[in-house]
Amino acid sequence: MSTDAAEVKKLYWAGFDLGGTKMLAKIFDSQYKTLGRKRRKTKGHTGVELGLARMVQTIHQALEEAELKPDQLAGIGVGCPGPLDLQNGIIFEAPNLGWYNAPVKEVLNKEFGCPVVICNDVDAGVYGEYRFGAARGSLSALGIFPGTGIGGGAVYHGQLIQGSKSSCMEIGHMKILPDGPECGCGQHGCLEVLASRLAISAAAAQAAYRGDAPALRAMAGTDLSNIRSGILASAIKEGDESIKKIVLRAAEYIGIAAGNLIHAFSPDVIIMGGGLVEAMPDFFVQAVAEAARKNVMPTFKDSFKVIPAELGDDSSVMGAAAWAQKIIQETTTKRIDAKA
Amino acid sequence: MSTDAAEVKKLYWAGFDLGGTKMLAKIFDSQYKTLGRKRRKTKGHTGVELGLARMVQTIHQALEEAELKPDQLAGIGVGCPGPLDLQNGIIFEAPNLGWYNAPVKEVLNKEFGCPVVICNDVDAGVYGEYRFGAARGSLSALGIFPGTGIGGGAVYHGQLIQGSKSSCMEIGHMKILPDGPECGCGQHGCLEVLASRLAISAAAAQAAYRGDAPALRAMAGTDLSNIRSGILASAIKEGDESIKKIVLRAAEYIGIAAGNLIHAFSPDVIIMGGGLVEAMPDFFVQAVAEAARKNVMPTFKDSFKVIPAELGDDSSVMGAAAWAQKIIQETTTKRIDAKA
Repeated sequence: MSTDAAEVKKLYWAGFDLGGTKMLAKIFDSQYKTLGRKRRKTKGHTGVELGLARMVQTIHQALEEAELKPDQLAGIGVGCPGPLDLQNGIIFEAPNLGWYNAPVKEVLNKEFGCPVVICNDVDAGVYGEYRFGAARGSLSALGIFPGTGIGGGAVYHGQLIQGSKSSCMEIGHMKILPDGPECGCGQHGCLEVLASRLAISAAAAQAAYRGDAPALRAMAGTDLSNIRSGILASAIKEGDESIKKIVLRAAEYIGIAAGNLIHAFSPDVIIMGGGLVEAMPDFFVQAVAEAARKNVMPTFKDSFKVIPAELGDDSSVMGAAAWAQKIIQETTTKRIDAKA
Repeated sequence: MSTDAAEVKKLYWAGFDLGGTKMLAKIFDSQYKTLGRKRRKTKGHTGVELGLARMVQTIHQALEEAELKPDQLAGIGVGCPGPLDLQNGIIFEAPNLGWYNAPVKEVLNKEFGCPVVICNDVDAGVYGEYRFGAARGSLSALGIFPGTGIGGGAVYHGQLIQGSKSSCMEIGHMKILPDGPECGCGQHGCLEVLASRLAISAAAAQAAYRGDAPALRAMAGTDLSNIRSGILASAIKEGDESIKKIVLRAAEYIGIAAGNLIHAFSPDVIIMGGGLVEAMPDFFVQAVAEAARKNVMPTFKDSFKVIPAELGDDSSVMGAAAWAQKIIQETTTKRIDAKA
């Protein structure tokens, strides 16, 4: 790679995924081939200042691996836990990291001298799958990621759907049973309290306690903390019918939420990811697909497919970089138009 | 108005609203001032061919009133009952008119020699309010129109949200009570079966029959067909507490659906229209606003306002014309870009 030529032309993009436990930086060429990568622990507890310095270091290390210099970067995209101030590139609040008002954009922009775009990490992942993964070629895509909560994101005709406020596509807090159990958010009957991996594990622990899930009980006892996605998958495989039913009921609720969003903006692809989906992709994805189909009007029944995400950890980091590229290039085009 | 100059320049836009009972054509200048208008009965029962000829005539008559000639039209926008083939400008199915596969775009394009864009009539109305009415200046807007059914439409950052299939923003068929009563669509617990004007009237008829709504009973008896929006409003005014409760419950359900869509794409303005809203704008709109606020996460509580639509019958006809202008001009720009 000729550094002389590249110093003039800013041809490379950095993607960054700021996770609760790990951070990942990647450097891409214009074809989104990975030229460098660096993964480190996030260590959010060290605070905003040291955390941001750690992000800077990590990008520098990925650049070194790519044999590139900072001034060869055309832009940086960062997927962050929310809520966010998208305009000013600030993380308002990331409770998992203990961070408040972290000026990500300002710090990275000052260090690397290129435009920086932040977005929600789930949104970044959905955009990554839309551009490079399971939803490639779709017109509109919805992403559903059941985990401890249930994350969601959506792309509509090439645009990430982002709220007029700091957050949106909060599929986990769509109301499925208005008189249902209380959710962590204070509302009742949210999708998350009915169908997250945590809700499934809680129901599974009850079944184990009652003696209805012998395989699961033998593997994990009745402690919620031990009943992870892999355990749930194994219990089903070993014949715990009660666990199968619990998971199917969760899929039914997710199918209702998906159905509501199909009625809203008619995505042609629904991508599912997260630990639960990875542990039982065929079973769970198919169950959600059937539930969604059952819960929509006839005109929508064949309008979508439900498929597992493809890119794993790469989805957010690729999506963040590609979204940043799109935003930065559109902004540049508008400026040129305005001058003309 | 100089016809000589205008014959060279196509400066005017036609908007058309194809309703179940009436059709309305308007001719606008580039500032969306109305230069001509013509309203006629739709007479859908005469069939597709005569119906399309009637549309053609109606536009000609509006043009005459505007003292313009067909070749002065830059484009025509048509709000149609759905489902639609947006690309080819065909009404697949309009059960209220008894029309199937009506080639609106082809017929109007051939007659007037200008581009034609069709869209869903509710979408046209929401876009009209977004551009010229109650939601003017908003970033994203959601429209909710409770009537016999419950229509919906949405604008996200300037774009009408249109499905990858023929329809979307079917807010009336979002599922509020999965185990609720059966809806006309075959599903259970859709918003429409719980909160449409028809659902309210059915509950009101029961209250009247039971003797719980003396004012309403005196005005309209127990026949559902007589219990229209104005009667409901009068009954509340005259003290029928049971009717007030029924309407408030409907508003609560609409607030839950609105809340789900606020979580999805975070509109900053929610516009409400239709007969029920017109009959009791303050009471009903405020009830929905309170219900929506009660049913969203804290971060969204102050992110939106709920207001009545402003433009009445003009919303669809103005919205259809303005949406057509946007689509036609964007297409032209893309062609110029492609040539350059």
